[in-house]
Order: sequence, then structure tokens, then C-alpha cells
Amino acid sequence: MLYETFEKIYALEKQGKEITKLNVGEPDWRPPANVIQVVCDALRKGKDKYSSSAGVYELREKLAELHGCNAKNIVITTGSKWGIYALLSLHMRAGDNTIVLSPHWTAYDLICKQLGGQTKIVDLKMENKFAIDFNKLESAIDSNTKFIILNSPCNPTSKAWSEGEEQEVISIARKKGIIVLVDDAYRDLCFDARKERKFEDNLFIVNTFSKTFGMTGWRVGYVVVPEDIAKRLTSLNNITTTNVPVFLQLAAIKALEQKTKVAAKARVVCKKRAELASNILNKKLTFSKPDAGFYIFPKLPVETINFVNKLLDSGVAVVPGAAFGNYNQHIRISLSVDEKKLRLALEKIAELL
Amino acid sequence: MLYETFEKIYALEKQGKEITKLNVGEPDWRPPANVIQVVCDALRKGKDKYSSSAGVYELREKLAELHGCNAKNIVITTGSKWGIYALLSLHMRAGDNTIVLSPHWTAYDLICKQLGGQTKIVDLKMENKFAIDFNKLESAIDSNTKFIILNSPCNPTSKAWSEGEEQEVISIARKKGIIVLVDDAYRDLCFDARKERKFEDNLFIVNTFSKTFGMTGWRVGYVVVPEDIAKRLTSLNNITTTNVPVFLQLAAIKALEQKTKVAAKARVVCKKRAELASNILNKKLTFSKPDAGFYIFPKLPVETINFVNKLLDSGVAVVPGAAFGNYNQHIRISLSVDEKKLRLALEKIAELL
Repeated sequence: MLYETFEKIYALEKQGKEITKLNVGEPDWRPPANVIQVVCDALRKGKDKYSSSAGVYELREKLAELHGCNAKNIVITTGSKWGIYALLSLHMRAGDNTIVLSPHWTAYDLICKQLGGQTKIVDLKMENKFAIDFNKLESAIDSNTKFIILNSPCNPTSKAWSEGEEQEVISIARKKGIIVLVDDAYRDLCFDARKERKFEDNLFIVNTFSKTFGMTGWRVGYVVVPEDIAKRLTSLNNITTTNVPVFLQLAAIKALEQKTKVAAKARVVCKKRAELASNILNKKLTFSKPDAGFYIFPKLPVETINFVNKLLDSGVAVVPGAAFGNYNQHIRISLSVDEKKLRLALEKIAELL
Repeated sequence: MLYETFEKIYALEKQGKEITKLNVGEPDWRPPANVIQVVCDALRKGKDKYSSSAGVYELREKLAELHGCNAKNIVITTGSKWGIYALLSLHMRAGDNTIVLSPHWTAYDLICKQLGGQTKIVDLKMENKFAIDFNKLESAIDSNTKFIILNSPCNPTSKAWSEGEEQEVISIARKKGIIVLVDDAYRDLCFDARKERKFEDNLFIVNTFSKTFGMTGWRVGYVVVPEDIAKRLTSLNNITTTNVPVFLQLAAIKALEQKTKVAAKARVVCKKRAELASNILNKKLTFSKPDAGFYIFPKLPVETINFVNKLLDSGVAVVPGAAFGNYNQHIRISLSVDEKKLRLALEKIAELL
């Protein structure tokens, strides 16, 4: 449903319709100009040939430093989504399952199904501030479970579980002999400014340059995994995506150098927008205060599919909650346009309620 | 074996060793400067966001024109390799097979195995100029066969089968109700300057900007397929690679405008190098004269793995024939460096024989 919404909106835009896109998980900030400059320089110098399917060594080294491991633990991927797909595909066989805390990013479900497996959904409630019920989580694990996916901060709720809660998930997984795949796409945007997640043995860390640096369409992601898994993933890259363009990987190195500053600036923007949304929408509907990033996931008094369509007719795109699990009364709003547009769009939403 | 060779050489280069890389299927010519300029302009204008997983519409339209079909038949892919992987993955189930004329590009084999299937190899002989034995081909088809892969011109032999031979393969497949996947990566480099392949119903055409335009590391490919397949592939892209960066797709549009000129120039370079190779190597070993591109696949009097290793010690990388099927006595030489370097490297090969 998420991707159908997207393709529908691309089609409307092609027809010339102006739409405020609060549907896409895509910040409006731009990559630093010197990052773009690296792309141009590298292209002009011919750094655009085939390269290692593990990634450019220097980039892997710098990422390893951040995550407290070795370059051999890092593989650069065509976006973090490919990292997730590839890692799941190396482990899941027909009949296997992966546990997902819900509401959850649609792609997890679709990927598991594509691989002949399924997701087991552990529903969390807005009314409990999306707290994890650890007993429920543990009892969802069965002999066919290969992974728990932990997406903290979470798309679509912007819930960031505390370090203690995260460690509890990891220790349950360790006890049961399964792996936690952490999707850290939004981690840099935590309002409490968390440090990089460190490499651990039964953790697969997946991350991306998309959100922090506004490089969504560049498709530069990476994984931090045990060495044998990194080797298998490299082999899979060799017969699928080959390599992320070198000129983009060199730009990613330049981006990393500025990460502290860029992330801090992004957090300020996100916080401000979250407050704006709260001010405009709070009287009309309830939502859990975001801990990070740019999503809110409010609950409406009714099912939201019709509401979303009506809203689209008036030029504002959001995603119905049903795209994220059993959340028919929710909508996901991505607070990812400039304040002026955002204010207008949010007022339209409030008005239509 | 192909990719192990590559990763080994990347590692040697990282150690500072200078290697003449006649192993990689990668031309040394550069994309036109105005193509690179489009990337820089597009990036500066912010054309780097998520986009349709089918690809940029204008690029799809222009490709559809070339191939005699509709934009709905075109999907832009992260390299043609991802196109091949994705199309095979939509059709092959455990136990299925795909027929491959051999010698053949390693990736076909590895992809089929990764998908739980296998390749059925139809061996062709240099002594017969790699002519197709149509009876042998037809009798290789069984009830689990999903595809014939036709790679013409072929990697590693640079054999381009005549239009008549190609049509014979297609008509055998049609009769048997299976699909021909044509991998046209090298088609623009045919010395007889072939026109674009036209869309047909039981054909999946896969192509790339890599070879013609010297854009190997950019990862811009595309497929030409029936509309329902294009839709399914778009859905698969949505949960894997997402999209080829828009700024690269816009550059691909610019490249296409210059295709006739660029391809003609590339053919002149390729022909000249093929003659050079023939002059230097002909006295020492036998090979089938290439019809296209930059590969030759000579046969040596002995198994070639040791020879290839010795050659690498002396600074020249080629690929052992075993990487392409039952061709232990062959080597693949990629004539893809400038003439001066090429002459020196070929003389080293001749010397070592």
C-alpha cells in the first residue's frame, strides 16, 4: 500500500498536479555542497569504473571506526533497503519468519514474503506509548524464527526505545539464538543525540546516508555484520547490484566527515517541525510525541483510507496507517517540507478532520 | 572464479601493485563530458530524491522508441545484472533451470544457483566458430526450463550470432513455450553495426549503458519486457534497490542522444585492438576472430589456471577459461586498455606462452 501510494503520486505529479508530499520518508534538506562537489570531481577524474562489491576500502574503514569494528565487518549496499533484503535472503528459507514490532515499515513484510517467509507481528499500542511487551515478544519466537527487526527510532511512529529496552530485545534474541537486525536509518535524528551503535556478535546493523544527509535518492547504505556474513553479502552483491558507484562512495566519505554537525542541524529542524505539528493538530487528534526524525503517526476517530484520498484531492499526500500494520485508524505524516508549506498542509489536515 | 579474481586484484592494487587489468569487462573510454555535466547540474538542482522504481519516465520513453514499444515495457535497473537477476527471480523456483550457451558469463550460473535453480549448459566449440547446434539446444529444454539466455555478442568469445541464428533460437523457445532472455550488453559494439533489437512477446531484452558509453560503475541498465512483467519488476525494485539515482538517469538520457556517434567511435577502437591482438598472438595461439567488442577467448595447449597466476605475477591480469564453463584451456583477454599498454601486455602474454 505504501508503494502503491508513491507510484500513484508520481503519476499525478507527471500530470502536472502540485502535491505537498507528506507521504515520503524523505527530508527536504540537501547534502552539503562539498559532498556534491566530490561527485563531480571524481567523475571528471574517471572514478566511475567497476569496484569491489564490498565497497570502497576507505569508506569501510571510516565506518568501522564509528561502529567499533574492522573494515571487514562493513559492506556498502545500494541503499539500506538492499542491505536488509540481502541479509534476510542469506538466512530465510521458505517457512521461516522474522519478528517485527508493529506499526512497522511496509518493506519488512514485503521482503519476507518475497523470500518465501513471513513476518510475525507484535502489535504495540499508541495508548502505551508504543512500549515493548517483552513477554509477548519472547513468546512470539518459534523454531522457524530467524530475526527480530528492531527499527529504533521507528518508521512510522518516531518512537526511539531507550538503550535499556533495546538491550532487553538483544538479550532475548541472544538467549533464543536468533539475530537482531537493527535498522538504524533514523538513529542520527534522535532528539537525545545518541552515539553510534557498536558492533555486537548477534547484531546485524543496517544504516544509510539517506536521512541524515538528505541523500535518499543516492542509494548509499551499509551494513555492519560478522566477517563471514560480510563475505557472503559481498558475493551476493557480485551477482546483483555489483557496487555502489565509486563517485558516490567517495562523496559519502566527505559526508561522514561532517556528520556531527549535519546531524545536529537536522535534529533542530526536526524538533521545531514536531512542535509545529503538535500545536496545529493537538486539538483535533491524538498522537504519541516523536523522539526523533520527521514522522508522526496520529490516530483518528475513524478508518483513514477515505480521509487520505480526500486529503490527496486537496493536494496533500500522507499514508494510511494500514500500510504499517493493523493501524487502520492512523495516518503517517512525514514532516519533511519547509515550514511554510508544512503549516499550510497541516492546517488543511486539521480542517478536513 | 571470475569475481574471486576481481576481488584478489582489487586487494593487490590496494597494496600498491601496478596491474594491467585485461581481466575486467570494462572499456577504457570515458562517458562524454556533457553526460557528466548533466550529473553535476542535476545534483546541484536537487534532483537526487527518491523516484519511481520503474525509472524516470522520459528515459523510459526514449528507450521505448528505440525498441519499438511503450514506456510501460521499460524498467530502469541498477545495472543490467540486477535486471537479469530480478527477471530470473520472478520466474525461477527451486528445481527450475535456464539454458545457457557456453562459454558463458559466470553470473548466469551463480544467479540461477542463488535462486535455487540451475543452468543447463550447451557447450559450443571454438573449432566450430562457436556455432549453435540447434538440435542440441532444443533437446536440452525440459519441463523445468524457464529461459534460454542468449548473449550475442557473447562474453567471453565476442561471437555475435547472425540474425537468422538468433531468430532460430527465439522460434525454438516460442515453440516450447519458454522465454528467451537476451543480454544485449555488447550489441552496440557489433562490428556489423546492428540496429536496436525490437520488442517481441516471448523476449526479455536486458541492456546497459555500461559498455557502449564507458559507464560501467554507474550501474544504469534497463529491461524491455511485457507490461505485466514490468509491473512485477517495479514492485521488486520497490523492496530492494528502490531506484537508480535520478541524476544518473538524466545523464543516461543525454548519453542516448549521442548513441550513434559514441557507438561508432567505440567500434573503431575495438576493431583496431582486435587486429593488434591478432597480430601479436596469432603465431602463438589460436582464437576465434571477434565479431564485436573487446574480448578474445584464445585456447592454449594446456590448462590455464597456472598460466593466469604466473601472468598476474608479471603484472598482467586475465581470467582463466574455467570461469566461463568447461573451457579449462582457454583464457579471456579483455582488450580494454590503451594501445601502448595493450601492446606491452599482449607481448608479455606471447612471451610467457
